[in-house]
Amino acid sequence: MIRVGIIGSTGYAGQELVRILLQHPQAQIVWYGSRSYIDEKYADVYRNMFRLVDEKCMAEDMDQLSSEADVIFTATPQGLCASLVNVDILSKTKVIDLSADFRLKDVNIYEKWYGIEHKAPQFLGEAVYGLCEINREDIRGARLVANPGCYTTCSILTLYPLVKAGLIDPDSIIIDAKSGTSGAGRGAKLPNLFCEVNESIKAYSVAGHRHTPEIEEQLGYAAGRSLALTFTPHLVPMNRGILATCYAKLNNGADAEAVRAAYEACFADEYFIRLLPEGSLPETRWTEGSNFVDIGFKIDARTNRIVAIGAIDNLVKGAAGQAVQNMNLMFGLEENEGLKLVPLFP
Amino acid sequence: MIRVGIIGSTGYAGQELVRILLQHPQAQIVWYGSRSYIDEKYADVYRNMFRLVDEKCMAEDMDQLSSEADVIFTATPQGLCASLVNVDILSKTKVIDLSADFRLKDVNIYEKWYGIEHKAPQFLGEAVYGLCEINREDIRGARLVANPGCYTTCSILTLYPLVKAGLIDPDSIIIDAKSGTSGAGRGAKLPNLFCEVNESIKAYSVAGHRHTPEIEEQLGYAAGRSLALTFTPHLVPMNRGILATCYAKLNNGADAEAVRAAYEACFADEYFIRLLPEGSLPETRWTEGSNFVDIGFKIDARTNRIVAIGAIDNLVKGAAGQAVQNMNLMFGLEENEGLKLVPLFP
Amino acid sequence: MIRVGIIGSTGYAGQELVRILLQHPQAQIVWYGSRSYIDEKYADVYRNMFRLVDEKCMAEDMDQLSSEADVIFTATPQGLCASLVNVDILSKTKVIDLSADFRLKDVNIYEKWYGIEHKAPQFLGEAVYGLCEINREDIRGARLVANPGCYTTCSILTLYPLVKAGLIDPDSIIIDAKSGTSGAGRGAKLPNLFCEVNESIKAYSVAGHRHTPEIEEQLGYAAGRSLALTFTPHLVPMNRGILATCYAKLNNGADAEAVRAAYEACFADEYFIRLLPEGSLPETRWTEGSNFVDIGFKIDARTNRIVAIGAIDNLVKGAAGQAVQNMNLMFGLEENEGLKLVPLFP
Amino acid sequence: MIRVGIIGSTGYAGQELVRILLQHPQAQIVWYGSRSYIDEKYADVYRNMFRLVDEKCMAEDMDQLSSEADVIFTATPQGLCASLVNVDILSKTKVIDLSADFRLKDVNIYEKWYGIEHKAPQFLGEAVYGLCEINREDIRGARLVANPGCYTTCSILTLYPLVKAGLIDPDSIIIDAKSGTSGAGRGAKLPNLFCEVNESIKAYSVAGHRHTPEIEEQLGYAAGRSLALTFTPHLVPMNRGILATCYAKLNNGADAEAVRAAYEACFADEYFIRLLPEGSLPETRWTEGSNFVDIGFKIDARTNRIVAIGAIDNLVKGAAGQAVQNMNLMFGLEENEGLKLVPLFP
Repeated sequence: MIRVGIIGSTGYAGQELVRILLQHPQAQIVWYGSRSYIDEKYADVYRNMFRLVDEKCMAEDMDQLSSEADVIFTATPQGLCASLVNVDILSKTKVIDLSADFRLKDVNIYEKWYGIEHKAPQFLGEAVYGLCEINREDIRGARLVANPGCYTTCSILTLYPLVKAGLIDPDSIIIDAKSGTSGAGRGAKLPNLFCEVNESIKAYSVAGHRHTPEIEEQLGYAAGRSLALTFTPHLVPMNRGILATCYAKLNNGADAEAVRAAYEACFADEYFIRLLPEGSLPETRWTEGSNFVDIGFKIDARTNRIVAIGAIDNLVKGAAGQAVQNMNLMFGLEENEGLKLVPLFP
Repeated sequence: MIRVGIIGSTGYAGQELVRILLQHPQAQIVWYGSRSYIDEKYADVYRNMFRLVDEKCMAEDMDQLSSEADVIFTATPQGLCASLVNVDILSKTKVIDLSADFRLKDVNIYEKWYGIEHKAPQFLGEAVYGLCEINREDIRGARLVANPGCYTTCSILTLYPLVKAGLIDPDSIIIDAKSGTSGAGRGAKLPNLFCEVNESIKAYSVAGHRHTPEIEEQLGYAAGRSLALTFTPHLVPMNRGILATCYAKLNNGADAEAVRAAYEACFADEYFIRLLPEGSLPETRWTEGSNFVDIGFKIDARTNRIVAIGAIDNLVKGAAGQAVQNMNLMFGLEENEGLKLVPLFP
Repeated sequence: MIRVGIIGSTGYAGQELVRILLQHPQAQIVWYGSRSYIDEKYADVYRNMFRLVDEKCMAEDMDQLSSEADVIFTATPQGLCASLVNVDILSKTKVIDLSADFRLKDVNIYEKWYGIEHKAPQFLGEAVYGLCEINREDIRGARLVANPGCYTTCSILTLYPLVKAGLIDPDSIIIDAKSGTSGAGRGAKLPNLFCEVNESIKAYSVAGHRHTPEIEEQLGYAAGRSLALTFTPHLVPMNRGILATCYAKLNNGADAEAVRAAYEACFADEYFIRLLPEGSLPETRWTEGSNFVDIGFKIDARTNRIVAIGAIDNLVKGAAGQAVQNMNLMFGLEENEGLKLVPLFP
Repeated sequence: MIRVGIIGSTGYAGQELVRILLQHPQAQIVWYGSRSYIDEKYADVYRNMFRLVDEKCMAEDMDQLSSEADVIFTATPQGLCASLVNVDILSKTKVIDLSADFRLKDVNIYEKWYGIEHKAPQFLGEAVYGLCEINREDIRGARLVANPGCYTTCSILTLYPLVKAGLIDPDSIIIDAKSGTSGAGRGAKLPNLFCEVNESIKAYSVAGHRHTPEIEEQLGYAAGRSLALTFTPHLVPMNRGILATCYAKLNNGADAEAVRAAYEACFADEYFIRLLPEGSLPETRWTEGSNFVDIGFKIDARTNRIVAIGAIDNLVKGAAGQAVQNMNLMFGLEENEGLKLVPLFP
């Protein structure tokens, strides 16, 4: 039984970790960390957990936790994990960080996009970017995994095979992404009120969203060179789901057949990636509550572009589910252990 | 492994059966019945099932199915199950009917409220009303179970202990119920279009909803006499969930303590019934995707009434989940086998 | 041209006042009061007003405002209007208070239900309860009008004719009300976040909501005696709208014909009250954006109860629209001047 | 008083015409045409119109109507208007067609994208494309106006000034558009059911939506040459609103200042176009119920692209409101007569 500690268990991603881990046959949660609700019963914060979780929330004491847990998930704001992690902790336990602290290899890019000083750049080299379908082998041996962002997971997996196979011009990539509102977190902020979000759609952080360099770095590895792309997130009046509509110019000879072959070369054996049949395109509802990534595409022959679309549940494959997938890899379990969740519809 | 056939697998309740049974360790679906989608791939009808279900939809041949399945779920419109079931079928397989055909013992009441002739009244005596927490023992031995309605499950469980303990006046009961839109089914009807349901709430079938006699019959058993109540369903712009707000006059001596004791006497050991602590009232979101029934109450001392509130997921405890719970009982499994689903939030 | 000042113009009700008054041919807003946004442009707070309102928000200086405005709307939390109003102000301007400060005649009931001291009980006698269809004549001559609450407007108008005509037992009244989320205001509170409200329904303030005594007082006038009723509000995942489902025992001889006659006796000539034809019941969507009250009913012959249902837009007839209707009366305009808004659907 | 006939008055766009025209001081509806609801009361089809519209629905007899109406709006499926209009009708009345029949000048492109034969190509030359801010002068003298599509109105107005001023590369244009569900019409189709649309987002008609050639034709006029672009519509779980997120490569020297100057050169004096200040971007909620087009932009300096965003209410500026704006122009009224609708929020 893997003993799991969660720091930041009362955010939406933290709560989703709890939901998944409660149904995981090999894991046991030993620490419900929460800065805001110390000593309150977890089930008083999330009523769905009534009678399922009896524990109270505890302080975010990573030192003590490292002695009691085999793995620590940090589902906390940027900067916290980097300020807490140290050699001693990593010698005793594994850390899966759901924040952005260890996702970017270049500390300067981190500090520029996130606007804060990185407190533990010495671990950037060791940290493994936890996009399981791409970095599976490195994840198996890692002590510190940087769990990818929600938009980035969806965007990278949708574009990676195309970039890797040289089918598209890397400088032509535009990602128009749409997210449910749970991605904004559980903070009590006016823009996230029901009446402000409902019955509207908007773009935000245009030309400046922090997931941009993360996508660029990973696609850059596929391209074998650095690249810059345009990424535009939108807020959708729904709870869960990310749809990434990705545009790029096709290189010579790149047709539908080649595109499908590229996806299959990368993902044919992946349990969690569902390449949809021709004529079918992803919709977020078909992934809700599950760890699946649905991918489809259409060639726009008139303009020689591809429109490749990916869909995930932002809280599962975009956060907690992928974190558990990483845990499974790090502990030698079946990768989909506890994650064969059937999407909930409607 | 229990071989399961589903007649009506492409409605919302049928699809929820599929979702639950796919994750059930002791069941295997052998027949995806559907009148509308014969020979189409099930995963083309419900894209969430892509790569999880490879089967095609099949005709609704109950005779053949009775030879291939240990249990048949009928998630079909009123009248169909009664027109298909017969002695031969019941000698070979068990039937759990999610329609109303076998819920009411009195064929006249059925024909009056449903406006159709009952084709198999000879089985009304044998059929067991499948409200597990009330009729558990009878269900274990049953060949034919009438799975309760969604509104009725929520309403009966909320009121049963109060009626049984004589704490409320049975003639004073008013149930004001609210349901998500999946309860209206997947038929392509104008009133169920997104733009017609969204941003609105309405009552419907006022003083005439068919679940009324079902609630009255079951509460009548608890009261030891027949009773009539007012039941008003409402349509809420959400996918899932039923909230039943129940009003009744308190009898002499019925205070909060007595009410709580009555609930505990009935439900203290029930896995799926969560009696909320004082000060907490049910909200449908906390049950979504699960088989839980959340119950809470408040005494309105000024008017000497109780306001007792129940919440369920209409597709789970109100349909497919309870049907599987019945199956578990009928086959001697743990009652919550495959049903320890953690509610999905948000 | 009536010069209008609004104190609390940046709440949802205040903004709705602005929307309505901008389209009112006889009114001009001279003061956009707001405690939270002083010196910010109003159109930066509400982007829908861009290019329509150039003014900045101003402090809530009721003294100065009383010299510059012919009428002041106070759309503020309980207690504020009572703490500001005085003889001098009322000698210079008229006040329409959208809060609860002057709705209840009995200061003790106010202080008990609202839990605060009333700072100006000396005006309770003078204040007129601004339910236009009931108190029209008194409103015309008033200096200080207490604009009714949203739930109360809908509930009282639905039940008033029945109580007045003696058709129902006043002690049997139960009101099960449902409201859109704008009724909760624009405060940044966790329970009002999109993901907390969406896909759920709940009751709140059960047996203790502050609108209860307001309904009881007004229906008591109709009954000619005091009465106590059960009122249960619910939160619905939609922006606007209130539906009040009202239950009562019918007195002897009270049939559908008598009920319809009672409604017509009270409301036949009312522009804003639409008594729906037999077989039709209110839905909130048909009133959205308008000042209409839709009323319908059904007799539940089996239980000898009536189910009477009212629907309004909580921000219009339940707040800003009725406030403007009061203004029209107080200034001798046509009562529906600027209020012939056609409901927006879908 | 302009006598108005509406063919197709019971669709969503038709009903929005009714809403707007009822509040228009110079127009009177004399014909509520509807194929599906002949002889039914209009207010029975749309309950919001109860007591506002007493008329019954009438057959779609354009010949007779042309003698009784000064202008006919056709809010009907593609093909109908072209099959009905003729020289006689146009000699007696004006026609504003909300369908696509007369939007494209090239009949071959129409027949290719719409897949039907054009029944009246002889009027394509005469018909004026009714995008008021671009074709104002031609509209004034027109007998036959082709009212633009919803996506196209939003997309063209957002991009027109940039193309005209030569600030962007016309071959680089990508439009990622999002629409509320009322754009799908009131037909009872499974994909438009509440439970199918709610809690999801999807792209549809990728690389093949019929609004594409319409946008290309109009932007081609601005560019002075033909162009091809990528247009991707998405379905959003909300009733109203279109957001068009437009991407293009900036030409040399095109900076934020030049972009703003280009917008102001085209639209500075337009009542209905609101160019948002720097730092502010459109959201559909701020336009709901109004005829406004909100436009904002951001330069993505890293990739030398512009992200220009437009927002409208698809039923108003995207259909009925623009149709009335056209009517105002054709009859010599103030262009915003009856259209100074303040956006409804929340």
